[in-house]
Amino acid sequence: MTPQLDSDGRLRHLLTLDGLPRETLCRLIDRAGQIRDAALGRTPRRQALDGTTVCTLFFEPSTRTRSSFHIAAQRLGADVLNFDASTSSTRKGETARDTLRNLEAMGVRGFIVRHAEDGAVAALAAEAGEGTALVNAGDGRSAHPTQGLLDMMTIRQAKGADFSRLKILMVGDVKHSRVARSDLHALRTLGAGVIRVCGPQSLLPDDGTLSGCEVGQDFDAMLEGVDVVMMLRLQRERMEEGLIASLEDYHRAYGLTTARLARAAKDAVVLHPGPINRGVEITDEVADGPQSLVLRQVSNGVAIRMAVLEMLLG
Amino acid sequence: MTPQLDSDGRLRHLLTLDGLPRETLCRLIDRAGQIRDAALGRTPRRQALDGTTVCTLFFEPSTRTRSSFHIAAQRLGADVLNFDASTSSTRKGETARDTLRNLEAMGVRGFIVRHAEDGAVAALAAEAGEGTALVNAGDGRSAHPTQGLLDMMTIRQAKGADFSRLKILMVGDVKHSRVARSDLHALRTLGAGVIRVCGPQSLLPDDGTLSGCEVGQDFDAMLEGVDVVMMLRLQRERMEEGLIASLEDYHRAYGLTTARLARAAKDAVVLHPGPINRGVEITDEVADGPQSLVLRQVSNGVAIRMAVLEMLLG
Amino acid sequence: MTPQLDSDGRLRHLLTLDGLPRETLCRLIDRAGQIRDAALGRTPRRQALDGTTVCTLFFEPSTRTRSSFHIAAQRLGADVLNFDASTSSTRKGETARDTLRNLEAMGVRGFIVRHAEDGAVAALAAEAGEGTALVNAGDGRSAHPTQGLLDMMTIRQAKGADFSRLKILMVGDVKHSRVARSDLHALRTLGAGVIRVCGPQSLLPDDGTLSGCEVGQDFDAMLEGVDVVMMLRLQRERMEEGLIASLEDYHRAYGLTTARLARAAKDAVVLHPGPINRGVEITDEVADGPQSLVLRQVSNGVAIRMAVLEMLLG
Repeated sequence: MTPQLDSDGRLRHLLTLDGLPRETLCRLIDRAGQIRDAALGRTPRRQALDGTTVCTLFFEPSTRTRSSFHIAAQRLGADVLNFDASTSSTRKGETARDTLRNLEAMGVRGFIVRHAEDGAVAALAAEAGEGTALVNAGDGRSAHPTQGLLDMMTIRQAKGADFSRLKILMVGDVKHSRVARSDLHALRTLGAGVIRVCGPQSLLPDDGTLSGCEVGQDFDAMLEGVDVVMMLRLQRERMEEGLIASLEDYHRAYGLTTARLARAAKDAVVLHPGPINRGVEITDEVADGPQSLVLRQVSNGVAIRMAVLEMLLG
Repeated sequence: MTPQLDSDGRLRHLLTLDGLPRETLCRLIDRAGQIRDAALGRTPRRQALDGTTVCTLFFEPSTRTRSSFHIAAQRLGADVLNFDASTSSTRKGETARDTLRNLEAMGVRGFIVRHAEDGAVAALAAEAGEGTALVNAGDGRSAHPTQGLLDMMTIRQAKGADFSRLKILMVGDVKHSRVARSDLHALRTLGAGVIRVCGPQSLLPDDGTLSGCEVGQDFDAMLEGVDVVMMLRLQRERMEEGLIASLEDYHRAYGLTTARLARAAKDAVVLHPGPINRGVEITDEVADGPQSLVLRQVSNGVAIRMAVLEMLLG
Repeated sequence: MTPQLDSDGRLRHLLTLDGLPRETLCRLIDRAGQIRDAALGRTPRRQALDGTTVCTLFFEPSTRTRSSFHIAAQRLGADVLNFDASTSSTRKGETARDTLRNLEAMGVRGFIVRHAEDGAVAALAAEAGEGTALVNAGDGRSAHPTQGLLDMMTIRQAKGADFSRLKILMVGDVKHSRVARSDLHALRTLGAGVIRVCGPQSLLPDDGTLSGCEVGQDFDAMLEGVDVVMMLRLQRERMEEGLIASLEDYHRAYGLTTARLARAAKDAVVLHPGPINRGVEITDEVADGPQSLVLRQVSNGVAIRMAVLEMLLG
């Protein structure tokens, strides 16, 4: 029982996929699927959140994730407020908690929160009032639950609901990745058959994050026969931090090329959370090729975020 | 007769509470109370301003005040445009007057204007066309009328409509405070019984602002028996300007603690316009304690701004 | 046949007025006129784009143009997303093309794009999917088609639909002006009688842009008898680049004063795309005088942008 569930097991906030019941997780993915089917072409916007104010409260900037949530909330008929916490009164010394409480007092009921520190969103959720719901849009290296959900939705669309038959490979900077952690939580909950993790030793965590995974450094060997390849973004800072030698080096060892992808199962699919460093994690040919689900992930992201907001606030 | 009223005494702009008729002031507070009562829980948004474009035109940044107005306008069904005048064509040498006229020509009918200079908003209002209304969201040290209104609304909710029975104490940097000036204007209009003002000599104005007030430096003595304590925000610049010795010093002399608050009337209430410098003007215990109306002020702020926009544009 | 038209001659994107059929151009201006007439006073907002998300995607900042498009899209009932591409993942190395495709995948159907490079918007349009429409909101020195349309609409309102009877003078930095190029394209399409162009040699293009125009340096002589004076904005950079000696110098030679304007036809009108450098291109007296259509241009801009969005997405 995580604090994101109330005593009746209902979702009050979405903070992490760690411990989120399989049933809740599947319900969100199912609902996102319905929303996506209904939304082919232009749709008159649904009024589920009419009269509700939703605030994107980003203590760390991310135009893209914010846009996805913004569109999701608009589609549900919510009023959306962008609150850029990096240029606001928090700079005048106000605490994040006071910022939250003030916006709550203004009548905001849903908060999409991103923060650079692990656990910061959960800490804010603990301060939130009765009718207020928080969605973690990424905190530190801990969690990015809507990304995890949209990745599962995307895999399920391509490979079906039975994850026990799947071999899944995750590649890259797992150590610093909130996306990787949320994906791993969800893959375990959904009972993925085999989870392989591959990357340079310096970018793999040694804290239990990878328990139960097959871990290795040899990308070519790990690719053998996998159904799903989940690439991670490489932050350029890692080079300055001395964790990788160079981008060229990284690409040689862990860049996904068409030749390499041929080692995977014939109908293997490729995911990447974006934004892509073309030519580093992945070549243009793969990113834009027939096995890439990168843009599908982005579309699914809006549907998942609509499903989450609807479940929390609808 | 201030220029914010037309020849029939109707409100055309809201620029200052100085000289605003008691009747208009009370009508706005009454209306905000009705809006607030109706808005408990989620409300289908009202359509009073459907088809009207309202622009927040901030020549000085303030995320929080802008958010409050943004939400108020959205709740009334207006289209809201945020125009950040500090990163716009004003930087290319355009005058504030040209910016206003351009936005007017685009069809904006309501402007929420903040400006660092005294009188700048009134000067812009003098340039505005027939159907255009301006709301002063703070200019220089002069006025912040919606803050004044929401403070009065908050006091009235707590203490009733008869202000003649009240002893009110204002504490802190009155000299540089637009909030203090708007509060003093409104308190006089509503016939407050006793108005005490307390702060270091260096932060009190000597220009007639405090006429009719009991003025003193001894916070403990001034607190004796008051019904309402209105704390002001201390800008950290005041230290650099040499107007106060240190924040610790200021807190020792003018910080509101539980012990100190015990000198006030038993059921005294505490207001603060926010954002709060916790541990400077006020301790956590007081800010979050049962006598604090700080978050009530924030809620009332949205209702007051809805009432103002509705009266001006509805 | 420009790539902005589909095989049936229907407008798919609006990228340039160069080669845009006269019929399409006139249809847009006619429709904007109807919109403008209907929109006198406050109008319940029209629902032509209800459920459609329109994104302002500015790789070069321009608060004013963005606001005009924002208001136009809101009036049509669209959901509007501001995507400031200068502070987004493009900074993290994402290509403009990836940004576009991601936003498309989120369900954005209309893009208002500004970019500092010539041809960048057309290049993006070539990447856009089936149901997506782009509007060029200014690229490099090439084109600013909605400005050209609104200028034509403004001239037509003042001088009637028969442009063959008109003498039109364009003044200033044609060389670096996207506005000038779009105006020249449209004026030719509409069969303007005489087009004169006047400015310092250093600010006039020598690449065929002015073919068919009467070109000269003597502002007083060129003004003689013209019906329309189209002033261009002077970027202050031109001085630093050594293209003009000083602003005073420029004003002496090419600033429009009341005395000078008297040389034009009695009922001549003056246009300027804004923002105006008062006292440089134009004196206050002329800018705010009875012959100035500057604010009319701004109003027409919203109507033109509504007509364009409606034609592309409605």
